[in-house]
Amino acid sequence: MNSVASEPALIGLDWGTSSFRAALIGAEGRVLDRLAAPEGIMHVEGGRFEAAFTRLLAPWAQHAGLPVLASGMITSRNGWVETPYAGLPAGEADLAAAMQVHRTGEGRVVHFVTGLATEADGAPDVMRGEETQIVGAVAAGIRAGRFVMPGTHSKWVEVAQGRITGFSTWMTGDIFAALRDHTILKALMVAGPFHDEGFRLGVAAGLSAGSDLLHRLFHARSLPLFDKIPAEASADYLSGMLIGAEIAGGSADLQAQGPVTIIGRDDLADRYETALGLAGLQSHRAAPEIVARGHFTIAKAAGLIT
Amino acid sequence: MNSVASEPALIGLDWGTSSFRAALIGAEGRVLDRLAAPEGIMHVEGGRFEAAFTRLLAPWAQHAGLPVLASGMITSRNGWVETPYAGLPAGEADLAAAMQVHRTGEGRVVHFVTGLATEADGAPDVMRGEETQIVGAVAAGIRAGRFVMPGTHSKWVEVAQGRITGFSTWMTGDIFAALRDHTILKALMVAGPFHDEGFRLGVAAGLSAGSDLLHRLFHARSLPLFDKIPAEASADYLSGMLIGAEIAGGSADLQAQGPVTIIGRDDLADRYETALGLAGLQSHRAAPEIVARGHFTIAKAAGLIT
Repeated sequence: MNSVASEPALIGLDWGTSSFRAALIGAEGRVLDRLAAPEGIMHVEGGRFEAAFTRLLAPWAQHAGLPVLASGMITSRNGWVETPYAGLPAGEADLAAAMQVHRTGEGRVVHFVTGLATEADGAPDVMRGEETQIVGAVAAGIRAGRFVMPGTHSKWVEVAQGRITGFSTWMTGDIFAALRDHTILKALMVAGPFHDEGFRLGVAAGLSAGSDLLHRLFHARSLPLFDKIPAEASADYLSGMLIGAEIAGGSADLQAQGPVTIIGRDDLADRYETALGLAGLQSHRAAPEIVARGHFTIAKAAGLIT
Repeated sequence: MNSVASEPALIGLDWGTSSFRAALIGAEGRVLDRLAAPEGIMHVEGGRFEAAFTRLLAPWAQHAGLPVLASGMITSRNGWVETPYAGLPAGEADLAAAMQVHRTGEGRVVHFVTGLATEADGAPDVMRGEETQIVGAVAAGIRAGRFVMPGTHSKWVEVAQGRITGFSTWMTGDIFAALRDHTILKALMVAGPFHDEGFRLGVAAGLSAGSDLLHRLFHARSLPLFDKIPAEASADYLSGMLIGAEIAGGSADLQAQGPVTIIGRDDLADRYETALGLAGLQSHRAAPEIVARGHFTIAKAAGLIT
């Protein structure tokens, strides 16, 4: 990798529900330095975001003159500055035009990247933060296709001509944790290392569940009860079933064809890669640093970096 | 109703996870007296079931010579006497033949009605207690058709020629509680009176969810977030969606045609009746006292009552 020295040009903040991440970005888009803290918006005492902002960025005090872009749940009702959602389609230029500017007491300017809203299946859907990651992935070369962003609330996203044209939220991770910890399934859940076979069986069951998901989930109990799978496989069977059901629905709902790009934590990305393969879908992983790349791309489109 | 005096002939116990119910049953099958206590099998201290049995039935000490039939989770691994599951098809004669006899220290004889197991969709399914209710409903005149038994774990049951030929478990109630109390949906859940319109919207969404259930569930959050439904409707919307999804899958999986018989608590039966109607399915409610009627019918088939 060519390690040419680069002048800092931008600070990008990925400020979500459970964590704060900052990137010091050079004039060519490279990440020069990083900061991270467990101070997600739910953990900022008394909602004093400006104080947290100043304190968390203190290590980069010499760069206080740089423009700051912030994305994520920090722009939600429970965040620092609530911004309205932008509509679809949305690409770097749309997001640049929709940014909301906030000036701190110390005179620093923060540009908030707004989230996106759409309507499908007769109901609204929303994202905050993922749009910036997608812009980063687009800038990294994937200008059309479908994306899955696994997590507590997975997103399936469709991109055409470099702009987000549709997306949907899937409660897979949230539901997995609730079922594992707060239903009858809890009784047979045994912790252990990843159980690959149990996971694959679960994926197959989820892919074919159709409208039977509320029934098939009971199999995470009945299979170990009858020693058809070991108790150690139960949690991964459940995980596989939910991910399989998500893929069956999420991929079918999208117009776009071609491989699915996975954006997410490595351990989850591994599961989705396996499950997508069992579904007969090709996949690949997004490039690293796509949040910073998204911030950089939007800042460029907004003329904040020349 | 003709109130002819009747000699007690049988004690029927419906002993489940969370409650104990006993019926003193006459020679013609009428319920002459009832006992109930919140001592489900999970609440019997130290698993001392025989002591609980003696104490709870003390008011009927003069009837200690009567045969006792017990059904429900009392025959499970966490109950008094674990009995093996019987297979399908199963009617009164099959259940009578499969009963397990247990003699208490005091010399009383308890006949345990075993639960049923089947295998479908590549996995086992089980019931304990519901088989006795179905026998009661069959004895009350419904010798063929489909049944839904709403609850924490709903059962869909198929009956032909007076015998249970198939069934499946649906985790609807358990999942409803877990989602309402332990996911992001909790934040917008406002308690209030039953919200009929929200419930109906949810049913429609659930009926058409297909493989999109994990996505549609997010609408229980996004709709109130955008003031498309009031926050007071959110819990009933969620309830409706899960019941709708259950009906879409459960009714499609059964071979039997004709109206669906609802067996369950009145408040839940109301919801299922509404939802079945929205699905275009006719329904009616099972006769009352079907557990006692099931105990009576099985006892007759076993020759315990002449």
